[in-house]
Amino acid sequence: MSASTPYENMSPVTQAAHRARTAAAEIAPLPRSAKDDALLAIADALEVRTKEIVEANALDIAKAREAGTSETVIDRLTLTPERVRAIASDVRDVAALPDPVGEVVRGSTLPNGIDLRQVRVPLGVVGIIYEARPNVTVDAAALCLKSGNAVLLRGSSSAYESNTALVQVLRDAVGGAGLPADAIQLVPGESRDSVRELMRARGLVDVLIPRGGASLIRTVVEESTVPVIETGTGNCHVYVDAQADLDMAVDILINSKASRPSVCNAAETLLVHQDIADAFLPRALDALAEAGVTVHGDERVQSYADATKATVVPATAEDWETEYLSYDIAAAVVDSLDAAVTHIRRWTSGHTEAIVTTSQAAARRFTQLVDSTTVAVNASTRFTDGGQFGFGAEIGISTQKLHARGPMGLPELTSTKYIVTGDGHVR
Amino acid sequence: MSASTPYENMSPVTQAAHRARTAAAEIAPLPRSAKDDALLAIADALEVRTKEIVEANALDIAKAREAGTSETVIDRLTLTPERVRAIASDVRDVAALPDPVGEVVRGSTLPNGIDLRQVRVPLGVVGIIYEARPNVTVDAAALCLKSGNAVLLRGSSSAYESNTALVQVLRDAVGGAGLPADAIQLVPGESRDSVRELMRARGLVDVLIPRGGASLIRTVVEESTVPVIETGTGNCHVYVDAQADLDMAVDILINSKASRPSVCNAAETLLVHQDIADAFLPRALDALAEAGVTVHGDERVQSYADATKATVVPATAEDWETEYLSYDIAAAVVDSLDAAVTHIRRWTSGHTEAIVTTSQAAARRFTQLVDSTTVAVNASTRFTDGGQFGFGAEIGISTQKLHARGPMGLPELTSTKYIVTGDGHVR
Repeated sequence: MSASTPYENMSPVTQAAHRARTAAAEIAPLPRSAKDDALLAIADALEVRTKEIVEANALDIAKAREAGTSETVIDRLTLTPERVRAIASDVRDVAALPDPVGEVVRGSTLPNGIDLRQVRVPLGVVGIIYEARPNVTVDAAALCLKSGNAVLLRGSSSAYESNTALVQVLRDAVGGAGLPADAIQLVPGESRDSVRELMRARGLVDVLIPRGGASLIRTVVEESTVPVIETGTGNCHVYVDAQADLDMAVDILINSKASRPSVCNAAETLLVHQDIADAFLPRALDALAEAGVTVHGDERVQSYADATKATVVPATAEDWETEYLSYDIAAAVVDSLDAAVTHIRRWTSGHTEAIVTTSQAAARRFTQLVDSTTVAVNASTRFTDGGQFGFGAEIGISTQKLHARGPMGLPELTSTKYIVTGDGHVR
Repeated sequence: MSASTPYENMSPVTQAAHRARTAAAEIAPLPRSAKDDALLAIADALEVRTKEIVEANALDIAKAREAGTSETVIDRLTLTPERVRAIASDVRDVAALPDPVGEVVRGSTLPNGIDLRQVRVPLGVVGIIYEARPNVTVDAAALCLKSGNAVLLRGSSSAYESNTALVQVLRDAVGGAGLPADAIQLVPGESRDSVRELMRARGLVDVLIPRGGASLIRTVVEESTVPVIETGTGNCHVYVDAQADLDMAVDILINSKASRPSVCNAAETLLVHQDIADAFLPRALDALAEAGVTVHGDERVQSYADATKATVVPATAEDWETEYLSYDIAAAVVDSLDAAVTHIRRWTSGHTEAIVTTSQAAARRFTQLVDSTTVAVNASTRFTDGGQFGFGAEIGISTQKLHARGPMGLPELTSTKYIVTGDGHVR
């Protein structure tokens, strides 16, 4: 962007990004109290203006119904007065969290007497590209504001009316609290072009976080020149080792798979050590059947099916890499712990893998060799979550290795800078 | 990459990346002692085999001379027995550094009794794309090995013979120490195509670090689907505030600009508060003239030129964004500290900015408002350096906000994973 480009000749997305940059510079140095006041003003405003939010949401729902959208998706899209109250309450929770900005990450006095401090600072302008759920609009805005960032929100067109109403409420509240309203903006335009522009706004937007289906995430990862934090795909595994408490293994398997199959930390593949297959698989298959889960099994798993109530269909290579997000699970018998690790390394999306074992050596080896955001030992895969981890909030779950890995809380929405203080020091 | 792609049908670069991935999985869990033994073996081998390294280097130098390369560049390319010894000594220093892998970054027991630990792990496969200096080949390989990563090295074709010889020595030493030699590989092929392939090897290569000129870095940043850590461009500023110790200001200015103009932490722009311009600029211009520096000044700076020995040429907008890397400096008089900050935010590459001031309030405001990797108060810009910061080594200086910002040491070559330990915990 050259200095001479007239502002009015910029596209609406670029203009929004420029305004976000200016707002980001204003809110970055603000103390916690100023940001918390704005967050509490947002929570109050959401409650006071619930009616207009729900009315706007009704327009989205009517459009979705007309388009024949499934009731599951419509339910996710729906805002009721109770849901708006819950969203407002979440914003108050964010206000109560510690401010990550200003935290001294490291610090020392160098041998020459220079004081060195590495301090957390906001990232700047954060772009969030997301689907369906309008609650993400408020969650993401609150987390970005708390961490001193300006946010550019690009929701799905199916929630356009809801998001427009919500963002208007947020901006009014932020402005009323004396902060720049442009710290929270909806990306203008409903077309794909505005997403594309956002992805090429390197230098204006500091990071893009796509939240949604695998194809959205793949597009952003491949086409963006703005740095991206990849989130969410979860082909999670439960591995039952040669020595394991069978009750515990069944509980963890069923909880990991069936407690909420539509989320990224749900299990998608079961691996069973051959030495425990006779004892474990009949029980596991019955428990999965009872939970309504269809098993996509390899030949050895299939061989146990007849003696159980389970529906076992033959697994293909595709099953090993599928994130079903449904009442389906892939299942295989493996020869050893190392074979389980090899299978996982080959097929995992790198989200969460659990081992159930009574062996300390097995737990240690599995933990060392599995390279995913989270390795669970004798615990459900479902614990990989910012709330469960005690972060108080979550902007997403990063499945990449750079910057942040696993559930991202407020510190993951910051960068750092070094402050070097001397008294005339030269080299 | 589908499971059925036969290895032999892959391109040489993809094959190398696959071999690196396998090697990375093998070295990731290794304890420090195994990695240090390999590093010490590398240092010994470099000394024992100095002759073949220097001979290979002579071929590159002959080719460079034939091509009419400048003596400065040839000097950077040259390996002498002393330089090889110094490189070996640097490798021993890396061996002496603490191992970042396994460090517990955070840890707690959750309210439900689950033990949560966030532990440093290697990134996996690191790609380094760099120019000229063959010492980077060994430095980068040593740092990656120490941090448990496999490395794919893509040096410039002008150092091809040197790099080939060096990597052969490194691989032999690593293999001799019982580690997989494929943890260190030169990217096959001298053409641009091999760089392009490396940039598209998402899923095989975990991060690319370009080190070199601005155009190389821009290409990698824009074309890579592999996550990139942007390094190096330094349009650094020295700002002399209304109240400043004049001797200190001259010392810091001259040290920042002229102690080593070719490096990224050298100053490229001087900003002077109008209230101190009369007192400071004549002295500063004389000192710059003495150091052989040409000043590209705005009108107010030009007005001081006649009374000094300085060569002052009129500055254009281009000067404000130029990283000269030479005995040149842009200079302007500003109305206030905030005007200095605005200038810096507009033109900086975000590397390092220094303020010289006796005012605590000014130091605090400048530190808060300037958004660069490093802000120096009463110290030279030249301190932004992994060695100076006490990191013991440096793989580059990140000028981006994601993952790492500023000088990158060993911890910046790692990611983390969460380990969740329960005893049958379910949600």
